[in-house]
Amino acid sequence: MGEERIKVEGMSCQHCVSAVKKALESLQGVEAVQVDLEKGEVRFVRSEGVSLDQVRAAVEGAGYRMAG
Amino acid sequence: MGEERIKVEGMSCQHCVSAVKKALESLQGVEAVQVDLEKGEVRFVRSEGVSLDQVRAAVEGAGYRMAG
Repeated sequence: MGEERIKVEGMSCQHCVSAVKKALESLQGVEAVQVDLEKGEVRFVRSEGVSLDQVRAAVEGAGYRMAG
Repeated sequence: MGEERIKVEGMSCQHCVSAVKKALESLQGVEAVQVDLEKGEVRFVRSEGVSLDQVRAAVEGAGYRMAG
């Protein structure tokens, strides 16, 4: 469990920020989601039970792209 | 009752389109709201019972700016 940082492409406004935040928070084991819209950066704390693939799926399910 | 066309500033994505659409459709007497995101243009049919000031208030209440 540690802070993670990913790049998310396609966020353009506060609605997008909320959508991505909500998508990640819906994953059990992801907490403290913070979005920097200008940088296109999302930070969160992830427990070992959650894979980065699950995070990616959540981001893409909300209509955005996770870089890398 | 006729088609009206206004310019709305600040819409950047489909979430914004939905927010503006919903705000205008919440006004009784406004119908057939269509948003052109690229042009920043919103078209709708307005009955005489609805003033343009009410339309402006709805747009601004949603967090956007009505030009003009």
